[in-house]
This record gives sequence, C-alpha cells and structure tokens, in this order.
Amino acid sequence: MTQILVGSQLSYQVMQETTFLLHISASETSRQVIEHESLEFTPPLDVEICQVGQEGNRLHRIVVQPCELNITYQATVDLKPQVDQAINVGEMSASRMPGDVLPYLNPSRYCESDLLGRFAFEEFGQLDRGYSRVRAISDWVHRHLRYTSGSTNATTTAADVLLQRTGVCRDYAHLAIALCRGVGIPARYVAGYAVDLQPPDFHGFMEAFLDGRWYLFDPTKLAKTTQLIRIGTGRDAADVAFATISGNAVLTHKSVWANLFSDTTNSSGTDDGSAVSTA
Amino acid sequence: MTQILVGSQLSYQVMQETTFLLHISASETSRQVIEHESLEFTPPLDVEICQVGQEGNRLHRIVVQPCELNITYQATVDLKPQVDQAINVGEMSASRMPGDVLPYLNPSRYCESDLLGRFAFEEFGQLDRGYSRVRAISDWVHRHLRYTSGSTNATTTAADVLLQRTGVCRDYAHLAIALCRGVGIPARYVAGYAVDLQPPDFHGFMEAFLDGRWYLFDPTKLAKTTQLIRIGTGRDAADVAFATISGNAVLTHKSVWANLFSDTTNSSGTDDGSAVSTA
Amino acid sequence: MTQILVGSQLSYQVMQETTFLLHISASETSRQVIEHESLEFTPPLDVEICQVGQEGNRLHRIVVQPCELNITYQATVDLKPQVDQAINVGEMSASRMPGDVLPYLNPSRYCESDLLGRFAFEEFGQLDRGYSRVRAISDWVHRHLRYTSGSTNATTTAADVLLQRTGVCRDYAHLAIALCRGVGIPARYVAGYAVDLQPPDFHGFMEAFLDGRWYLFDPTKLAKTTQLIRIGTGRDAADVAFATISGNAVLTHKSVWANLFSDTTNSSGTDDGSAVSTA
Amino acid sequence: MTQILVGSQLSYQVMQETTFLLHISASETSRQVIEHESLEFTPPLDVEICQVGQEGNRLHRIVVQPCELNITYQATVDLKPQVDQAINVGEMSASRMPGDVLPYLNPSRYCESDLLGRFAFEEFGQLDRGYSRVRAISDWVHRHLRYTSGSTNATTTAADVLLQRTGVCRDYAHLAIALCRGVGIPARYVAGYAVDLQPPDFHGFMEAFLDGRWYLFDPTKLAKTTQLIRIGTGRDAADVAFATISGNAVLTHKSVWANLFSDTTNSSGTDDGSAVSTA
Repeated sequence: MTQILVGSQLSYQVMQETTFLLHISASETSRQVIEHESLEFTPPLDVEICQVGQEGNRLHRIVVQPCELNITYQATVDLKPQVDQAINVGEMSASRMPGDVLPYLNPSRYCESDLLGRFAFEEFGQLDRGYSRVRAISDWVHRHLRYTSGSTNATTTAADVLLQRTGVCRDYAHLAIALCRGVGIPARYVAGYAVDLQPPDFHGFMEAFLDGRWYLFDPTKLAKTTQLIRIGTGRDAADVAFATISGNAVLTHKSVWANLFSDTTNSSGTDDGSAVSTA
Repeated sequence: MTQILVGSQLSYQVMQETTFLLHISASETSRQVIEHESLEFTPPLDVEICQVGQEGNRLHRIVVQPCELNITYQATVDLKPQVDQAINVGEMSASRMPGDVLPYLNPSRYCESDLLGRFAFEEFGQLDRGYSRVRAISDWVHRHLRYTSGSTNATTTAADVLLQRTGVCRDYAHLAIALCRGVGIPARYVAGYAVDLQPPDFHGFMEAFLDGRWYLFDPTKLAKTTQLIRIGTGRDAADVAFATISGNAVLTHKSVWANLFSDTTNSSGTDDGSAVSTA
Repeated sequence: MTQILVGSQLSYQVMQETTFLLHISASETSRQVIEHESLEFTPPLDVEICQVGQEGNRLHRIVVQPCELNITYQATVDLKPQVDQAINVGEMSASRMPGDVLPYLNPSRYCESDLLGRFAFEEFGQLDRGYSRVRAISDWVHRHLRYTSGSTNATTTAADVLLQRTGVCRDYAHLAIALCRGVGIPARYVAGYAVDLQPPDFHGFMEAFLDGRWYLFDPTKLAKTTQLIRIGTGRDAADVAFATISGNAVLTHKSVWANLFSDTTNSSGTDDGSAVSTA
Repeated sequence: MTQILVGSQLSYQVMQETTFLLHISASETSRQVIEHESLEFTPPLDVEICQVGQEGNRLHRIVVQPCELNITYQATVDLKPQVDQAINVGEMSASRMPGDVLPYLNPSRYCESDLLGRFAFEEFGQLDRGYSRVRAISDWVHRHLRYTSGSTNATTTAADVLLQRTGVCRDYAHLAIALCRGVGIPARYVAGYAVDLQPPDFHGFMEAFLDGRWYLFDPTKLAKTTQLIRIGTGRDAADVAFATISGNAVLTHKSVWANLFSDTTNSSGTDDGSAVSTA
C-alpha cells in the first residue's frame, strides 16, 4: 500500500456571479481510498457534489458572488493498486468487451483515432497483442515527442502533436490514447495528482483496457504509475478540466502538490515488468 | 400518438471472422414505445445485446464467420412526444444542470465547440435565452449550408462545415450542436429513422437540453420532429455509427425505411411554435 | 510627399556557423524612394544582396560565426503614393489580368482561399465590385476579430482566424487576403514598417489588385495607408519573414521604429474615400 | 534523346461567358524542346498566351460564350535530360542558394513544411546530404502511402496525407515536397504528362534543387523520370491547375495521353543510380 498526501490551492478574482465546476478532488474507488479529505473556500460557500458519468467522476459545484476566492483541497489517499505481471496481461477481443468500455474506442475531440488509424496500424499493428503493445505505444510517444512547456494550447490535438512532435503531459496522453484506439484498444484520459511532479501541477496520463481492467500508463515517464492519484477520467482532457467556469473569473494563483507519505509496495510501476491498475 | 413502421436491411460480404456492433434498433423510452420488433440474420446467428452508456443506447453484437450476411430489422414504434409551447421553454443555468448533462457541454470529435465558441457567442450570444435561441441556431445552419451528398466524409467536423458551407444531415447536426455548446447549451447527436426521408437512409439530427428536458431539432428540415425515431444518442456521430466492424466485411447493400402508420397529433413539430421532446 | 525614418535593431546569440537571410530593408519602387540607408553589423560582416522574385524583394544574406551579433538598419524613405478616388477604382476581369498577377489568386499556406471561397462568396459576393468591396472585406475583418497578442502563432492560418476570431496583424492580413482571393480579387501580403505603430514592431498588411494597380489596406487600422513602408511582399507571411536562419542562433533583442519626418499629403489614407497605392 | 507524343482533349459545357486559363501545353526549356504543337478549339476562339512567373509557365487564356467547347492539345516533344551519377549530386548550402530558389523553401498551401519540419528532421535529418537523401524521402513516401483513387480531394494537404497514409499522385508529390523543405532542400511541384501512365491522366511529380539544378522525382513510381513532360511548375498543385475557370462551365470529358515515339537514352531514370534533370 502507498499513502500519498495530495492537495491544490486555487485563487480566482471573481468579477460577477459565476458558477464553478471543480474537478480537483481524488476519486474514490476500491483501490484508491480516501483517508481524510477537506475542501475549503474563502469566503465560505455552499457546495454541491455532482456525480458525472459512470466512471465515478465527482465534481464540486459552487456559485460565487464577486470576490477574491480561495479554494483549498487536501486529502490523504491510500493506493492499493492491482499489480500484475505485464507479460500475462492480454488484450480483449471486440467480441467480449463490456458495453461501457466501447465508447473508449471512439475518436474524441483531442484524440482523433479515425485520422490516425492507418498510422497506428502501420506502426503498431504487427506487434504482439497485450500489455506490451500499449507499452510500445507509450514508449514510442515518449521517444518521439519533446516535452516543451508552452508548445501547445487548449485546442491542440493528437494529430497536431503527431506532426509537430512537441507537447506537454496532456498531449502525450492524447497521442497515446489515439494510437491505442487506432489499433482497437479502448483507452481513456486520466487527470490526477502525481508524486513529486516537476514542475508541480495537475498531471495528465492514460489508461488502456486490457484483460477486463484499466491499466495505467504515463507516456511522459515523469511519474511512477504506482504513485498516480486519479481525480477523474474521460474520453480526453475535455472531460476533466480542473475548473469549468460560467460567468467571469480570472485564475490568479494555482499550486498543486502530491507527496509520498509511505510506500510498502515493491513495484516502481514503470519499467520493471509490472502492470498497474487502480480501476 | 404517432405510430411509425421503421426498418432497415443490410447485407455484408464477410471475409473472415468479424465482430459487428449494430446500432439499428429503435431506443425504448417512456415516450418512444416499441410495439413489435424483429431482428433477423441470414445465416442465423447468436446475438448479444449491449447496453452502452446511460442514455439507453442498445447495440446488438454478433460474431460472424465468412459468409454473405443479411440483416433485417423491423419495428412498429409508438411516439408519444411531449409537445410544449416553444415560447415557454427556457434555458437552464449552469448552476442547476444535472451532472449527467454536463458532458454534453464539452467539445467532441466532430463538434469542436472550443474552436467555434467565439463565433457562436458573436452570432447568437445576444439572443433571448431559451428554445427560440436553439431554433435560431438550427435555422442559421439550415440557411447557410447547402445540402450536397458526397461533399463531406467520415472525418468532416463542424469547423470544416462552418467554413465550407456544405454537408449532409450529420454535418448539419454537428454544426448546430457545436454552436449550442458554444453558447453554453448542452446538445447531443441523435441517429435515427425519419418518416419519408428522401433519399431514404438513416438520419442524423440533434437534441438540446432546455428546461430539464431534451428537445428535438432537425437543422436539415428534411423531417418533422414529431416523426423522428431515435436509434441512439451520443456526443456526435462517432458514438452512434450504425455498424462498427472488427474484422473484414464489406457492405454490399443498405436500405432503410420509415413510414407513418397513424398520426393523431396536431403538431407538425416544425415551424408551428411547438417544442417536441421524446427524452 | 511623405518622408519617414525607419529602422530596426536585432541582436542574436549565434551558437554555430549560421546563415541569415534578412528581410528588413525598405523596398525601392518608383513610389517608395530610399533617400539614405545603412545596414551595419557588429562584428563586421560581408553581406550579399539577394533579389527574390519579380516584386523587388531584397534580402541580405550573411554567414556568421559564433558570436553576439548586432544588426542595425536605418533608412530615410520618401513615399509618393498614388492616391485615387476610391469610388473610381474598379475590379479587373479575369480575362484581362496580367499573367504575373494570377498567382495571387491561388490559395497559399496561410490564406486558404479554397476553403473560404463559399463563405467569401456568401458574405461579399453580392457587393458592388471595386475598391469598396475590398474595403468592405477589410472592415469586416477589423470588426469581427479582436486584436490579442499571443492568441496565434507562426502556424495560424486564415481559416483558423475566421473560426477563433482573434489574432494579430499578420492574421488580420491573412484573413483579408483569403477573402479577397475567394471572390476573385488578387491579393498579397506586405511586411513593412508603420509610423508610430503601438507596440512598435514590424507590421503586416495587404494589397489588393484593382484596376491594374496594387492598393494598400490595413485591416487592423493601426496605421494610415499613406504611412506604410514596404519591406517585401509575397503570397503570405511565409514569404517575408524578417529573418530566416539556417544554423543555430537565438534572437535576444528586437526593436523597430518608424517616425514621420514630414508629410505634405492631404490624405489620411484611411476612411476618407481615398485609395492609396505605392506599387 | 527521347521523343514523346503528348496530348489532351477536354470538353466543357459552358453556361455563361467564362474565362478559362488553360495549363495543358508542354513547357519549352533547353532540355525540353517542342518539335510540333497544336492547340485547337471548337468552336474557334481567340487565344492569349500568358507567361506566369519566372519558371516559364505558359497559360492559354480564352473567353468563351455559352456553347459546347472542345479543346484539343497535341505536341511532339524532345527530351534531352541531363543525366548525372546520383552519387555525385550534393545539396547546396543555404549560404549559396540563388535568390530565385529561396521561395521553394517556404511552406505553401498543400505543403506545410512548417508543420512537418520536426518530423522531417527526425526521420531524414541524419541521412547523408545529397541526391540520396531526396531519394530516401521519395522512397519513404512511396512505401508509406497507399495509392487510392478518390481518397483525397482538392483541399487535401501534405499533413493530411502524412496522417491518413493514402492519396494520389499530387498527394505523393506534396508530401515529398514538404519533407524536402522540412530538411532545408528547395522543392517544387510539377504538373505534366507521363508516358503510359495508368490510368491515363495528367500527372503530378516533383523536383528538388540540388547542386544548382532541379532534379526530378516521382514518388508514385508510376513513370520513369526520363519520360516526364513538364507542363508547369509551382509551389504546389495550387499553382498549376490544368484549368482555372471564371464563370460557369462544367467539364464533361477529359482524355490525356503520352506515348513514347523513340528513346535513345540508356537511363531508366528510376532506380539505376542516375539523377535526371530537365530544368
């Protein structure tokens, strides 16, 4: 088991009555257990919790009058990942995939698997099917992109990134997702906290559906997959923005942290032949 | 109440073992009731029904060995739409939208509301909020596009269509959806059957979420909104392809029909001031 | 006649042997006469002048060893624009256009007039033909875009800008050019100096070919068309980058100026019914 | 020397007064000599010859009243290509390239070398400089694309093609051009006639500027480079459409032919180590 302290602090200048949908709290699953948690607002506010979709995404909705708004989230999270031998994890045939997984084969706003299908098939179609194929995709993305802050923006897509060969964590994840879908492997985006991420920020990574389970991959290799805390998951980053704002407010400060408190696992979750799943 | 006979007949040359996900059967909702229904295969096949997502999409999955495959779907469907006075139907504030509706505000593969947001806001941001604003968007799309078979393909997006000003039903729907989302109105794509559509084919249209309910719009104006049978709904056409194929099969024939059997409603559901909802 | 003092100062950290193609000196035409001019390098360098194309573009080529490079250009330029009554300036039929003008009807990298043709035709196709139509296009661009530094980058195109509705001078010019070509009017990009531009920088504007002559338009309205000094012209900004670098060098400083020394013309060249041409 | 008979026959239904710019006649250069040539119109018409640009493009302009128009072009052309040992042909440094060649380094409408630069550099940046590098690019394009009629349209670009991996001759040429420019080699599009092309049509291929000369490449490998007749050249296909129409006319028939009359050369111009130039 791994215990991790995560948190974020956001400040906004709110200009008029504004509705915020916040996506900053850790998800609760059987393998990601929240020990303690707090979400505080200055000035104090009523909060509504919205469940969105079937994957357990949990948003906090607040309606805020003009003010200087401070939001502080803190949690202690226990991770109990399922760690398998990667070599034993196969792909699942389209004839057996559960219905709820099927939409993760479809192209999405930032993961145009329809456009990249032939490329994906040409590059990865002949590889052995299973965990190792997704690992090959993730490694390919890592090897061919250059991590460059500011090289992309909120509208950059996997196809853009495949051409320009630069990006940040969300772009790495989008490209890996699109390539997985392109060869028939369901894949989804995960927004979360990552231990000791440099520079500290929210992180974006991905999961692929293999052998009936969602396995974690971080194509940036900036974090260990055993030390990733899920906030939410969706088809791509469009589904899990940390804040969606209706009204008029300007972000004036953001800080994010995730620190390892204790770790009793043996797996690095990275290049040691293990396959990590928390979902 | 309106009673409609719908059906489709698909033939495939199946070259190797192939998994089909078929999305051709009518949805069952409280306002769209299936009286009779049959789905037949030649040669005979085992069929698995997959529920996908929370909107009631129902897929039929078959695994087919090499053969000449014939698929025939037929149904008698009763429509009992809720018909409101359009003038009374308002928009819903982001502070009150149900969680399950929120994803329909996000951009999707073929509806890049992030790219079109400023255009949408400039063109439609000042209009009175409510049903009439979505109607204005739908009418704008109808007026500015030219319906041209073959002018677009499976990868054409709302942004493409806004520039090139031509398309077919799915393109009309995608553009209207993107513009709705661009001004903060949840919108989704619907694949279905439409009475007396010319030329006969599956149809694509859209729904906008207003006053707690999904209202129907057909920007092509090729069908009455009281005579649309829903097969499935999703973020855009990527979610409701009539057939998704894993393996190798070639479509050799497709025919689609939808005929009015009886109609006891008074509303045309088109330009008479009524607002039609079946969901 | 108008006399203008222009200049620019560029500094580079040159890391290895690098070839620079500089496009910073004023063009010499019958209506834009260079009184004095100097181009100085620290450390001193041999310079080669390259004539590129038929429009009089003049590049300076230097080969530089690793160093801190300073480039200073200064010139005194006399403008003797042809100023016509806008109302008298018509369009030229395709049956009579000179051969050298024809390429300026073709789509180019940043001006996809093929994609925007139907939009252009729908919006501007019915207007009276002539100077006033290009003015209407330029005004439309001015009215529908918001000038936002940093909202676009070096790969942003006219189609992007038409959708996102923000940009800087080059984007304004690209969109106006694409729309002109879309309705059959040859149009080209001009890089230059503009008197008292705020913030000071190189400027981008455009020319349209009307009645056998290239007329100036600045869709940003940031400068008077009688106070624009041409550096070079091309199909779009791709042709007139102020510096093209083969090797490895980093721009560390850039300053640009253009000051009015004397002005004996009566025309503002902006909204007073005059049509200004220097080419 | 190679002697080739080329020709084309075009028919149009002309609906209103229409101006045609025809780009169907062979270019005349020192290495491509026109022995006989005829261009006939039914009904008979006055023809104006337009020289466009510095590369010798020759257009025929006609103004046509409503009618059924037939255009027949025929020529006997002698090719005297310069054939070098490929192994001796190097690249030219940016510090020495002639001014007129420089624009062929810029991105153009269908060859977005700015977008593809990092890909080009990653894939081809480390190869030995010279003819063999362009050959490697041309071979890569040939190997990774699938020639599929109808898979692309008039707005398809090199970036599209790099993603979708299908196209026709113009797409092959565009991608090879963009990749050459991406690694700093000037490249241009050529429209022409190709001996025994199957199916018969106008052909699109490319030239790269090496060692002071333009060398021919056909990434489709559908024709020998010693049997290609140039009609015109430009930055990409936008510059050399076989017909540009202002007015209203519909193409009702097109046939194109190119037959070898005699060939006294030894080179296949394809994979035998020779480098072929006619410009």
